[in-house]
Amino acid sequence: MNHFVYEIPTKVYFGENQLVNLGEELRKYGKKVLLTYGGGSIKKIGLYDKVVEEIKKAGLELFELSGIDPNPRVASVNAGAEICKKEGIEVLLAVGGGSVLDCTKFIAAANYYEGDAWDILLGKVDVKKCLPIVTVLTLSATGSEMDNGGVISNPDTQDKIGMGFPAMLPKVSFLDPTLTYTVNGFQTACGAADMLNHILEVYFNMEQDLYMLDTVMEGLMRTIIKYAPIAMKEPENYEARANLMWTSSWAINGFIDGGKSQAWSCHPIEHELSAIYDITHGLGLAILTPRWLEYTLDEATVSKFYQFGTNVFDIDRNLAPMEVAKKSIEKMSEFLFETLELQSTLTEISIDDTNFEIMAEKACQNDVIPGFKPLTKQDIINIYRMCL
Amino acid sequence: MNHFVYEIPTKVYFGENQLVNLGEELRKYGKKVLLTYGGGSIKKIGLYDKVVEEIKKAGLELFELSGIDPNPRVASVNAGAEICKKEGIEVLLAVGGGSVLDCTKFIAAANYYEGDAWDILLGKVDVKKCLPIVTVLTLSATGSEMDNGGVISNPDTQDKIGMGFPAMLPKVSFLDPTLTYTVNGFQTACGAADMLNHILEVYFNMEQDLYMLDTVMEGLMRTIIKYAPIAMKEPENYEARANLMWTSSWAINGFIDGGKSQAWSCHPIEHELSAIYDITHGLGLAILTPRWLEYTLDEATVSKFYQFGTNVFDIDRNLAPMEVAKKSIEKMSEFLFETLELQSTLTEISIDDTNFEIMAEKACQNDVIPGFKPLTKQDIINIYRMCL
Repeated sequence: MNHFVYEIPTKVYFGENQLVNLGEELRKYGKKVLLTYGGGSIKKIGLYDKVVEEIKKAGLELFELSGIDPNPRVASVNAGAEICKKEGIEVLLAVGGGSVLDCTKFIAAANYYEGDAWDILLGKVDVKKCLPIVTVLTLSATGSEMDNGGVISNPDTQDKIGMGFPAMLPKVSFLDPTLTYTVNGFQTACGAADMLNHILEVYFNMEQDLYMLDTVMEGLMRTIIKYAPIAMKEPENYEARANLMWTSSWAINGFIDGGKSQAWSCHPIEHELSAIYDITHGLGLAILTPRWLEYTLDEATVSKFYQFGTNVFDIDRNLAPMEVAKKSIEKMSEFLFETLELQSTLTEISIDDTNFEIMAEKACQNDVIPGFKPLTKQDIINIYRMCL
Repeated sequence: MNHFVYEIPTKVYFGENQLVNLGEELRKYGKKVLLTYGGGSIKKIGLYDKVVEEIKKAGLELFELSGIDPNPRVASVNAGAEICKKEGIEVLLAVGGGSVLDCTKFIAAANYYEGDAWDILLGKVDVKKCLPIVTVLTLSATGSEMDNGGVISNPDTQDKIGMGFPAMLPKVSFLDPTLTYTVNGFQTACGAADMLNHILEVYFNMEQDLYMLDTVMEGLMRTIIKYAPIAMKEPENYEARANLMWTSSWAINGFIDGGKSQAWSCHPIEHELSAIYDITHGLGLAILTPRWLEYTLDEATVSKFYQFGTNVFDIDRNLAPMEVAKKSIEKMSEFLFETLELQSTLTEISIDDTNFEIMAEKACQNDVIPGFKPLTKQDIINIYRMCL
């Protein structure tokens, strides 16, 4: 029980104006920097200029890859790797949210691989070496700034695959909460739903728990529930943005796992949704989460729900466990769909049952998701149907 | 607010039988290993043989420094540094509790210094480089396994000084909860009191909080309160030992600070007690803690006590804040002196007021401890008196 190796050497600069340290950190890894970013929002908020200024001040040579999409494509990974090889890039600087960071991780790996980067996602390549990665985070959600994994989409095959290697862990991440002030309400809500789900995937787990980590997870969930609505109403509330930002990192950097090896459930089920319909990952998770909880609640799992309901939502401890469990799912739905104002059904976002069969098949890889409650293809179809 | 750099690259092997990885880890840093330990309890529990076997298996050359005392002396640091220099030691292996680990950290630093190691404690040396340190922990208490500080005593001057440098952070720490099965009830209790106080020193703080970290601290405190009594009654309860062990690391590795720079209060006040009377650090803290809390409680600080009492001890939220605050201190006393069965006064451990003046002077360095509530020399004397 509880055997694990803990190793998270990422250096984090947290707080406002920490970017003054960017040049010095980059210079530790080399002179030729590839700056990667998305659709240009970093230009609108003045962050691009700031970053370029720091790079120039440090006397580094700048190269760029822009246009990385949400649900980033393998084409961007290949394009980035090509620049790296051609220009002899020594360090990658990812500026953006989880999509940009994830894409950059695979560019870092693909620099040392001669074939199509998709092979890395397919598990055909044992990634031992990566270019060093520095990140500047602009969205609190995926936790990619402090973990070693990422998710890449392949529109040709309608696949979306997550994969991770220790070598892909960022060396340095800059977390400046003020850089998330311009994140709109919807994206703030989706980010909160994403973080919450990262924690739930570990918390709702039948493997032996380290109680200490349960208390940490409950605290992180309460933090999200407290501050996400504040950040939506007051986008420039530093306290709210700071709490969400640091929570996003700790929701998935590995600390809370404590050696649990059990598979995640909601994430693979969601990946099929965003792979085909290109929806925001956090929205897909929000719609799925309460249904997944409802589907997995039974006499064998009710004690975990009781713990969750009483410790996270302060539901009365004197109620019967099953009543607490059901109330906790209601509370979760209320939070996601009323407080965070996210759409609550697949129907609302124009997704019908057309692809449920094929998505379920892919999600469980024609087998069973061996998570909190093992889910067969039919179980997954049932959960999708509950979301209509 | 909340500016900080987070960087804790220590690799932790957690769980039973992880020592099979010891040889491989040591070999990364060199061939000549100095094994440091205390009075020989590691021989009684068979750990010495196990460690030596792993070192031999890895083909490494073994040197030894034994006899490191609780409240470790600067003489041991100098003795260790001498062996390092003479034998060309490449890596240090500390096997023991906080005293052995602390002493080893300063040996690692003193290897690169030509004078008396006490100069390092006096702040006369800017430590930039240390020999790499690997630790095997046998006591859950000080958190030295994952932080970069240590405390050393100088019996000649009756001084006890804490100091830290990033270079002193252990590279690798082995945390096997079963290695604490033989820790007796008193030492288990003192370890719990030490950890609790590490958290309280940060939690009771007037600097702006990151709520997320408060929830983590409250969870860690609840973990200690839940499991310390279990570990005392059932010394071989893995769950209890595991929770205490991992909590000890996170109580002081820097994560919970979140950029707070405010000075600690109880620790410097206690250090003077154990410097002169050579008592167990955790026991000194246990006696001081409730008095320090009582002394610092007022209208300006009551809100923090309310948060503490309701979230850690589940005191009724509907009571008046001052009532909750007072009850929380009572609960803390009950936990330390009844549940953990620790002595509750200085008188009980044969300490009278003879040295209060000089101890208070040293504790505040003839100035003020600028902590939660700033404490003058007279305040510190008052707190000592409350402990009689």
